[in-house]
Amino acid sequence: MPDVLLLPGDGIGAEIVPEAVKALKAVGKRYQIRFRFREALIGGAAYDACGHPLPEETLRLCEESDAILLGAIGGPKWDNLPVELRPEMGALLPLRKKLGLYANIRPALLFPALIEASPLKPEIVSGMDLVVVRELTGGLYFGTKKREFVDNGDEQAIDTLVYRTGEIERIGRLAFQMARKRRKKVTSVDKANVLESSRLWRDVITGLGREYPDVQLEHMYVDNCSMQLVRRPTQFDVIVTENTFGDILTDEASILTGSIGMLASASIGGKVALYEPAHGSAPDIAGQQKANPLATILSAALMLRLSFGMEEGAQAIEAAVRQVLDEGYRTADIMQPGKRQVTTAAMGDLVADRI
Amino acid sequence: MPDVLLLPGDGIGAEIVPEAVKALKAVGKRYQIRFRFREALIGGAAYDACGHPLPEETLRLCEESDAILLGAIGGPKWDNLPVELRPEMGALLPLRKKLGLYANIRPALLFPALIEASPLKPEIVSGMDLVVVRELTGGLYFGTKKREFVDNGDEQAIDTLVYRTGEIERIGRLAFQMARKRRKKVTSVDKANVLESSRLWRDVITGLGREYPDVQLEHMYVDNCSMQLVRRPTQFDVIVTENTFGDILTDEASILTGSIGMLASASIGGKVALYEPAHGSAPDIAGQQKANPLATILSAALMLRLSFGMEEGAQAIEAAVRQVLDEGYRTADIMQPGKRQVTTAAMGDLVADRI
Ligand SMILES: CC(C)[C@H](C(=O)O)[C@@H](O)C(=O)O
Ligand SMILES: CC(C)[C@H](C(=O)O)[C@@H](O)C(=O)O
Repeated sequence: MPDVLLLPGDGIGAEIVPEAVKALKAVGKRYQIRFRFREALIGGAAYDACGHPLPEETLRLCEESDAILLGAIGGPKWDNLPVELRPEMGALLPLRKKLGLYANIRPALLFPALIEASPLKPEIVSGMDLVVVRELTGGLYFGTKKREFVDNGDEQAIDTLVYRTGEIERIGRLAFQMARKRRKKVTSVDKANVLESSRLWRDVITGLGREYPDVQLEHMYVDNCSMQLVRRPTQFDVIVTENTFGDILTDEASILTGSIGMLASASIGGKVALYEPAHGSAPDIAGQQKANPLATILSAALMLRLSFGMEEGAQAIEAAVRQVLDEGYRTADIMQPGKRQVTTAAMGDLVADRI
Repeated sequence: MPDVLLLPGDGIGAEIVPEAVKALKAVGKRYQIRFRFREALIGGAAYDACGHPLPEETLRLCEESDAILLGAIGGPKWDNLPVELRPEMGALLPLRKKLGLYANIRPALLFPALIEASPLKPEIVSGMDLVVVRELTGGLYFGTKKREFVDNGDEQAIDTLVYRTGEIERIGRLAFQMARKRRKKVTSVDKANVLESSRLWRDVITGLGREYPDVQLEHMYVDNCSMQLVRRPTQFDVIVTENTFGDILTDEASILTGSIGMLASASIGGKVALYEPAHGSAPDIAGQQKANPLATILSAALMLRLSFGMEEGAQAIEAAVRQVLDEGYRTADIMQPGKRQVTTAAMGDLVADRI
C-alpha cells in the first residue's frame, strides 16, 4: 500500500492537491492499488498553526512516506517574518536538503491543444518538449551567508556558491540517463567564462560525457541559453544546470508553453521523492476555485512513474488530461474563446472520470 | 575635439566598428564637430599580437580617451588559454573594473519595422521599450574564487557573491533617475527569498525608493522576471539588477525584440564610458561582410547622448537607422521576404548617407 503524504501548503494548495488525489484514486480503482493518504502542514499554514513552517511532525511524516505531493507554499502574509521562519528558507529549502532531493526534474512540454496560449509564435514553439534537470541542494542556495558592517560603515552581504565534483557528477549522470530515454541530447548550462564553479561544472560534465558516447553533449553559457530558449526552444532535449541558473531557466521555459498551470515537477535523489506543480501559491486567486489543478494532477502522474514504477497509471492520467483539453475544458488561466470554463474541482472530476 | 578610442576586438568586431565610425563622421560633418579616432587591440586579437588580451598600452589609451567604442571580444580560438589570458577574464572584466564602469545600460526596444523578426506574437511584443540597468563591477563576477581538494578527494570550487550598500545605492540611483526620464517605473530584480545579498539589495533599493516618490517601485524575484519578460514585456520600463541576473535577463530581453543585432549598450560610471553592441563576436560569420552593424552604430548614438551630451547627433543617427529599415534594407540576420539584403559596409554607408 503506497503511502502518499499530502502537503497542501498555502494559497491555492488546498484546492489543487485534492484534485490530484482524485486522479490517484481513479488510477487506484482502475489498477487495483490502494493508496494511503496522509496529510501534514507546511509553509505559512504550518507557521500559523504551530509557529514553524516545517514542523518536526511534518518532517517525520515525509521521511516515513513513499512519496510526497506538495501544493505550493508562501505568500505576502509571511514575507516579513524572520528569514528562518519564512516558508521558503524555513521549510522548502531545509526539506529539500534533509530529504536529499538533489535533482529537480521539470518537463516543459507544449500541449498542442494549448499552442494558442503560448506567448511565442506557433511556428517557434510547436514541438517544444524539453526537460530541465536542476541541481537542487547545492550552489548559492546552501552556501554560507553573511551580513556584516565594513570599515566605511557600509553593510556588506555575502552568499557563497560552492560545488563539489560529486555533486556535479550525480546530477550529470541523471541528465545523461534521462537523455538516453529521450532524444539523446544534453545541454549543460554554466557561466564557465566567469565562474570557477562553472569551470569545475564543465570539466566534470565533459568527463562524464565520455561515458555516454551515444548522447550528444553541448555546453552553453547561461545568458545565451536564456536567449536560445526563446529563440528556438525545440533545439533542446535535456538541459542540466546548477541551482540558481536552473531556477531562472525553468520558469522561463515553463511560460513558453503558455501553460505554467499545466507543468509538473519532481524533486528526486533521496529515499522519498517530492512532486509539485511548477507554479506557485497564487494567493491572489486562492479560495476562489479558479486555480488550474492540472499541473498537480500531472505531478501525481510523475509520482506514479518515478516513485512507484507505474508507467501505465502515469500514462492513464496524462491521457485523461489531454482528452479533457481536447474536449475543450479550460480553467481560467488557459481559457480561450470558444472553450468551456470550469472550476478547479470540476476540472479534477473531469480528469478522474476519464481515467 | 572628442577623443574616441576604437577597440574592434575579435570576430566581426573589425567589420562593425568602422561602420559606426562612418556614422560618427557623418554626424561630425553635419554638426561641425571633429572627432579624433584612435584604435587599440583588445581580446584575442591583442593576445595574438602581444601575448595579453588587455595590453598596458590599450588600458592607457582607454583612460586617456573621452569615450570608447568596443566591437566584440572572444572566440573558440582562445577558449583554452589559462583563464587569466582569455578575452573575458583577462580583458573585459578587468577593463570594466579598472575604468569603474559599474553600470551597464541595455535598452531593449522593439523596432516596429522588425516586429516580424520577434519570436513573440506581435500583440505581446508590440510596444516593448525597456532598459535593463545591470550592476557591472560587483557580485559573483568579482568575488573571491577558489578551487581546492577536500577530504574525500573531491575537488571543490567556490565563487563569492558580495555586495555593499554603496554599490547598490549608486546603481539604484541611476535606475531611478533613468526612470524619471522615461515612464517612471523601476522593477528591482533579486532573489530575496533565498540570498542574503538580495535581501540587502532589496533593503537598499526600498530605502532609495522613498527619495523618488514620483517613481513607481516594484520588487520581483529573478525567476518570475525571466517569466514575465516573455509573458508581458510591455509591463517593464526600467529593470535594475545585480551583475549575474542582469547578464541573463539582458540577453533574454534582447532576443524578444527579434533583433539582437540591433541593440546597443553603454557601460558607464567612471571617467570614461564604454559603448558596445549587445551581441557577441560571432566568429562563425566573421570576415564575410554578413554582420549587422546597426547595434554598433546605435551604440555610437548612445555615446553622443551620454558621453558628449549631443542629443541632436544621437537622434540623427537613430532617425537614419529607422529610415534605412523603413526603406527595406536588411542585413542577413534580420532579412525578411520582400526586403533588400545588403552587406555590413553597405548598411553603414546607407545610414551615414541619411544622417
Ligand atoms: C520558493 C523558491 C525558494 C524556490 C526556488 O527558488 O527554488 C522556487 O522558486 C522554485 O523554483 O521551486
Ligand atoms: C563575455 C561575458 C564575460 C560578458 C558578461 O557576462 O558580462 C557578456 O556576456 C556580457 O554580457 O557582456
